[in-house]
Amino acid sequence: MSIRLPVDPTLVQLVIEALATLAFALSGLLEAARKKLDAVGVVVVAGLAAFGGGTMRDILLDRRPFFWMQHAAWIWALLALCAIAMFFLRARHFEVTERAMLWPDAVGLGLFSASGARIALDMDMPAIVAVVMGVITAVFGGVLRDIVCNEIPSAFRDHRPYAICAFLGTWILVVAPYLGASDAMALISSAAVITLLRGIALMTRYQLPEWNSGHRNES
Amino acid sequence: MSIRLPVDPTLVQLVIEALATLAFALSGLLEAARKKLDAVGVVVVAGLAAFGGGTMRDILLDRRPFFWMQHAAWIWALLALCAIAMFFLRARHFEVTERAMLWPDAVGLGLFSASGARIALDMDMPAIVAVVMGVITAVFGGVLRDIVCNEIPSAFRDHRPYAICAFLGTWILVVAPYLGASDAMALISSAAVITLLRGIALMTRYQLPEWNSGHRNES
Amino acid sequence: MSIRLPVDPTLVQLVIEALATLAFALSGLLEAARKKLDAVGVVVVAGLAAFGGGTMRDILLDRRPFFWMQHAAWIWALLALCAIAMFFLRARHFEVTERAMLWPDAVGLGLFSASGARIALDMDMPAIVAVVMGVITAVFGGVLRDIVCNEIPSAFRDHRPYAICAFLGTWILVVAPYLGASDAMALISSAAVITLLRGIALMTRYQLPEWNSGHRNES
Repeated sequence: MSIRLPVDPTLVQLVIEALATLAFALSGLLEAARKKLDAVGVVVVAGLAAFGGGTMRDILLDRRPFFWMQHAAWIWALLALCAIAMFFLRARHFEVTERAMLWPDAVGLGLFSASGARIALDMDMPAIVAVVMGVITAVFGGVLRDIVCNEIPSAFRDHRPYAICAFLGTWILVVAPYLGASDAMALISSAAVITLLRGIALMTRYQLPEWNSGHRNES
Repeated sequence: MSIRLPVDPTLVQLVIEALATLAFALSGLLEAARKKLDAVGVVVVAGLAAFGGGTMRDILLDRRPFFWMQHAAWIWALLALCAIAMFFLRARHFEVTERAMLWPDAVGLGLFSASGARIALDMDMPAIVAVVMGVITAVFGGVLRDIVCNEIPSAFRDHRPYAICAFLGTWILVVAPYLGASDAMALISSAAVITLLRGIALMTRYQLPEWNSGHRNES
Repeated sequence: MSIRLPVDPTLVQLVIEALATLAFALSGLLEAARKKLDAVGVVVVAGLAAFGGGTMRDILLDRRPFFWMQHAAWIWALLALCAIAMFFLRARHFEVTERAMLWPDAVGLGLFSASGARIALDMDMPAIVAVVMGVITAVFGGVLRDIVCNEIPSAFRDHRPYAICAFLGTWILVVAPYLGASDAMALISSAAVITLLRGIALMTRYQLPEWNSGHRNES
């Protein structure tokens, strides 16, 4: 890479990744609290939200060891986060925490989609498979979190663009090298566009058009 | 194979497979519509219903790449199907679609059970494991579809023979070679018997006897 | 091993393992009965409860073949157990069965946690990963059982020490070799301590302190 930054780029990357993972973990932690889970449930649901997407991608692509197995410090960080939250986080902090996490979450959506797709491309997967793997990396943690909490995953029913931002923006990663972009540039621009798309969706409160099938819910 | 057909057998096989996969995908699509999922949910649930069983079998048997990764055209076909459905399918079409899909679904049950068990046998798995893998191939897509839609899987509670048809008929595949049948003949007869069993179950509306434990549902 | 027993230690181990697995399977069987599942559901849920934890561990650690694939007799035993239960078990037996299984279940918790962690350590996993794998081995069968039955897993919300006993006691397995204990001794003492902790929790009806976030359940 020829980019020069005043600080170590590896450190910048680590900070961004940690912040995004924190946002994912907190989404699980708050859902677990709302469902009145006990300490075990809080840790598991926060862990699924944080690491579930990458783990699912690695199972599908048959990659081992998982990120959190290789860098076990992340498990300790998760345990510490849950302990701190259970001591200090109160219900009145939930909403403000969620709002504070919207942008880190959007950054995580971009970062993990792009890097997940990158991994699949490096394994010579077809473009559409790489895009799907990117989306799974970023979105499936939340899906597992919701399934364990006995909810239909919000990513599948809230009509807000989330997975779709990831789907669209990940194509930049696939296409950019053909336009002469370096791998690093393709990754950064793909992640940035996804985060931006998500940000626009958040700010405009855009909703996906409903499938107007005229069907009444039977259940 | 010494069988001669007036048309290319590979083409016949592809058409049957595509039709059966369509039936599986549509079952997911309709459940997603009933649950009022958004476009992302529709695609994911239809995809799980169509490819989830084979994917689960391959994870358990540690086979890669998955069918839908190797032949990425299936992902595009799924996306196209969902797009078409969301444009043209209306609630008043749901029931007739489901009824039209009963037989293709029965064909899929037979085909995917038999071929799933074949794969396990080729990996020198014990007979009972091969049979279980066959059943998982055909049935687990629907199970994952129902779990994501926050329902107890209908295959586990509707008292209609579905997995049981697959379980019984797959034994033909295991036993037939000992009776001198060719592999192709064993596969075809196993798939045909399963489809037939399922068809009889559909036409007679047979219900499995209930476990008469006298227990009241507490929930 | 220098331990001398009046009976074959392999036989003792097999009996203990079979009893513990029986306890796990029965927990699935009873939950399936309460949910009024059909025969297919009963077998699947009992099977998930019995073998799901070890299977999940092996998927995460990428080990094949699974225990129940290599020793297919366990599948036959599961089918036989379910058949017997559906013939002879009545609702009035449910509670007494559950109470009779509390101790075998506690033994299973200890045995499967310790042996699951042992497997991860043998693969040179970090200590915390090995402990997590131990807990998953013992607890995840019940988690899958509950998810399929459309419940939030009881291990995540009943505030009773179960996974936590496994988590604490598994550290003995990790630490003991550094204190000069043989592998066999480390395994036995770890399993025994976990079972004991669980037994104390059962007898004292100890409940984990609630996360007093002051949050009302919204659902």
